[in-house]
Amino acid sequence: MGAANVWIDGQWRAADSELTFRAENPATGEAIPGDFPVSKWPDCDLALSAATKAAVELRNIAPEGIADFLEAYAAGIESSAEPIVASAHEETGLPTSPRLRDVELPRTTNQLRQAAAAAREESWRRATLDLGKNIRSCYAPIGPAVVFGPNNFPFAFNGVSGGDFAAAIAAGNPVIAKAHPLHPNTTRLLAKQASKALAESGLPEATVQLIYHLSNEDGLKLVSDARVGAIGFTGSRAAGLGLKRAADAAGRLIFAEMSSINPVVFLPGALAEAEEKLAGELVDSCLAGAGQFCTSPNLVLLWEGAPAESFLARVASGLSQRAPQPLLSAAGLRQLAAGVNYLIGEGAELVTGGVVCQGAGYRYANTLLRLNAKQFLAHLNELQREVFGNATMAVTVAKVGELEALLELLEGNLTGAIYSSVTGADDHLYAILEPLLRRKVGRLLNDKMPTGVAVSPAMHHGGPFPATSQPGFTSVGIPASLTRFAVLECYDGVRQGRLPAVLRDTIANPNTWRSIDGKWVQG
Amino acid sequence: MGAANVWIDGQWRAADSELTFRAENPATGEAIPGDFPVSKWPDCDLALSAATKAAVELRNIAPEGIADFLEAYAAGIESSAEPIVASAHEETGLPTSPRLRDVELPRTTNQLRQAAAAAREESWRRATLDLGKNIRSCYAPIGPAVVFGPNNFPFAFNGVSGGDFAAAIAAGNPVIAKAHPLHPNTTRLLAKQASKALAESGLPEATVQLIYHLSNEDGLKLVSDARVGAIGFTGSRAAGLGLKRAADAAGRLIFAEMSSINPVVFLPGALAEAEEKLAGELVDSCLAGAGQFCTSPNLVLLWEGAPAESFLARVASGLSQRAPQPLLSAAGLRQLAAGVNYLIGEGAELVTGGVVCQGAGYRYANTLLRLNAKQFLAHLNELQREVFGNATMAVTVAKVGELEALLELLEGNLTGAIYSSVTGADDHLYAILEPLLRRKVGRLLNDKMPTGVAVSPAMHHGGPFPATSQPGFTSVGIPASLTRFAVLECYDGVRQGRLPAVLRDTIANPNTWRSIDGKWVQG
Repeated sequence: MGAANVWIDGQWRAADSELTFRAENPATGEAIPGDFPVSKWPDCDLALSAATKAAVELRNIAPEGIADFLEAYAAGIESSAEPIVASAHEETGLPTSPRLRDVELPRTTNQLRQAAAAAREESWRRATLDLGKNIRSCYAPIGPAVVFGPNNFPFAFNGVSGGDFAAAIAAGNPVIAKAHPLHPNTTRLLAKQASKALAESGLPEATVQLIYHLSNEDGLKLVSDARVGAIGFTGSRAAGLGLKRAADAAGRLIFAEMSSINPVVFLPGALAEAEEKLAGELVDSCLAGAGQFCTSPNLVLLWEGAPAESFLARVASGLSQRAPQPLLSAAGLRQLAAGVNYLIGEGAELVTGGVVCQGAGYRYANTLLRLNAKQFLAHLNELQREVFGNATMAVTVAKVGELEALLELLEGNLTGAIYSSVTGADDHLYAILEPLLRRKVGRLLNDKMPTGVAVSPAMHHGGPFPATSQPGFTSVGIPASLTRFAVLECYDGVRQGRLPAVLRDTIANPNTWRSIDGKWVQG
Repeated sequence: MGAANVWIDGQWRAADSELTFRAENPATGEAIPGDFPVSKWPDCDLALSAATKAAVELRNIAPEGIADFLEAYAAGIESSAEPIVASAHEETGLPTSPRLRDVELPRTTNQLRQAAAAAREESWRRATLDLGKNIRSCYAPIGPAVVFGPNNFPFAFNGVSGGDFAAAIAAGNPVIAKAHPLHPNTTRLLAKQASKALAESGLPEATVQLIYHLSNEDGLKLVSDARVGAIGFTGSRAAGLGLKRAADAAGRLIFAEMSSINPVVFLPGALAEAEEKLAGELVDSCLAGAGQFCTSPNLVLLWEGAPAESFLARVASGLSQRAPQPLLSAAGLRQLAAGVNYLIGEGAELVTGGVVCQGAGYRYANTLLRLNAKQFLAHLNELQREVFGNATMAVTVAKVGELEALLELLEGNLTGAIYSSVTGADDHLYAILEPLLRRKVGRLLNDKMPTGVAVSPAMHHGGPFPATSQPGFTSVGIPASLTRFAVLECYDGVRQGRLPAVLRDTIANPNTWRSIDGKWVQG
């Protein structure tokens, strides 16, 4: 049997490829039968040309058509949930239940349906009418989107089914999905459902395309191509910055979500009130997905002293009592081990873990490191390194000034959390620290862990550089996430019949929110 | 008398500078007395540190304080309109009346007042509340803004008084204004009014700062500095791309408005109906500000044949009958002459103009070039070069397919216009051409010239790369322009009393539009 077919211009066809790769089962370390191709440039070129045509055709398709496709796709994923979940479990080592079947898959179909609703409602277009001057503007599709999914969410962030995909499609753009090479078969199974749903809905055949893998060079060429409208990327800082450099130089827009260490501050009153509960929450959050969440709490900040010692002992004990889950890959295990050793080399002390687990598969002992604020500040840049996996690091501070200094010097992060006393005992500290943390994070939490990322219109999954490349945009939360894949289009003095439906004086859809002469009105 | 003082950290102080420069009167070519400093890096460093502090302080200032400042500033500009207009006239050669006194100055104070109203209303923050999940988000200030104003609008786009300035301040950010070196005294006079208004309103002293000039190297260093939140730039493509490269590499956000040739299509029916009127409109538009508008129609597209010949003859005659106005600088004159010669070298035929005017000052004959679509397509990249000044180029097409090919291959532009018959005779051509033009421009016009850029909430002054660096954002139009200087901030589970006022369950301001559980509501 040859390598799997790529999906380009409506055809599942043999890739233009010389190299192939296989996924591995990270729970056993064994390769999974089935070769997948590393496409050469002609596959990208073909996909870009097809996407360019599809982008033009999509502009003439009513939002209902796009919504129907997204909904049919969601239903298709549900109807074949069993093999999709089984494949993802095999390729990622993530638990079938609850994680893959009961949490991530429903989240993914929910995202697709929310995106469908947003496409249908059209409020995402933020139609703005100045009736007196007859100037009207709205968001419109930006053109072919290229989506690079990460390794850690085989459904919800997959290039062919995840949040970026749903947002780009709902905004009226074709998507060229680049699979993550750690879960190619899962991606193929998802794409098969997309393919069925496309055929049913009558959208252009090249509305969705799939390439499994590319050389780095071709990846850079792809994001630089003038046919690309925008790029969505979720992954490592090194890969993200490389793609960003190429895209920026070519004037292409890239929305890259990169690394984050997600500081969590425990104020003294909070620890005094609920030490055991908070230790449990921290352990749970650190181990969610074997620590392979973008929002995993990698940096824990607390006051030095007996309560901190008791808390950290409890955390260490919680971590060491839980069985380490498989990491996503051999490379992930290597990087985690290297990252922990690097932090130790920069002055962190190992409290628990810190070793590769014996036996089959890719597992690393649940790990806690610690040091004090003085040590952290002395190697600030080095110690802000994201270590992706089931490890976290606690920093104890002697006084609030140390914590202020530390927060002041933190890089941009996706999230930052502060736990404080319910009685108000920590309010003075909160008032000092919140403004400092606020400026460094996209999402600020009170009294909860950052690992849950609700699909809410008010969610912001993003943050200041280098957590992301565009701090004004979120990759989770509908309809806001759609505007990443949109341009602003203005119509000045354009005759009524020539306007897009959403900008005419009267519109058919009673649900669409528009800003007319400064007032938001519906319908 | 030494060189003019820069305005840094609340003080008008001697610049750290070895070089100085003078403005010239472009109507005479003579230097204007008064030296201005080229600042060295320590001035930038000082300004950045002061702006960083001011940014923190501004977050604790109610929107009313910011609005009061902007309004006091607008009033101050009006109260000293006479010397400001006189200085601008001397430094730019632009007519005192109506242009500077009756159009640009009122537009500038109007922008400042609209920005004040937007700051007060707070709808620009797009507060989004998910009450059930207690997740809330809104736009918030991005941090110190650096604004580079262009040469062609000494008030309305000035770094210390123009649209970018007003937007950045209204969004709660301090501004470091980099004057355009062609009108330093005008900028100084404006800044003096800003300085008075700041003192009255009690905002942090470093909310506005002014540097007159920098080396290229320091300009690149400035936009790369980690203390910068965002950069607004309006100017040439070369300068814009240089700054963009530096800002991108450092992860700083830059909103660069660069070059545009603003295609205008005259469909046959339109010419048949109103040839004389349209020729007059085109001539007026081409000569507005001596052709030195970002939206000047540099590319005129029409069907070959007798009507086109008659129309172009009328345009040529109109251009040659009008006295050439002074260009902004000797360099501008050199570049215009070189640009026209370059287009001629690439195959354009000179119809009228094409020579530097004799006598004092910097004037170039009003110029019309022409060629046909085949010739244009043969040197497409070269002939899309923006020639900044009182010159335009007509391209005749033999059939619609040629125009389709041409529009398909155009770069991104700020605007594109289509004139068509009022009877519907051109509707079939419009239907073919509009989708092609639409994708290449930010603002699409019907039956009007692009040079007017109304300050309307529905305006889009922006467009696809390389017209601008961010096709989703406008630099004119309030409140949309404010979001360039904003980040998205989310509050997840944050206690009510700790939320910013705009995100609490109930707010005091009855005018603020917020999206609560999917509905836009006021107050």
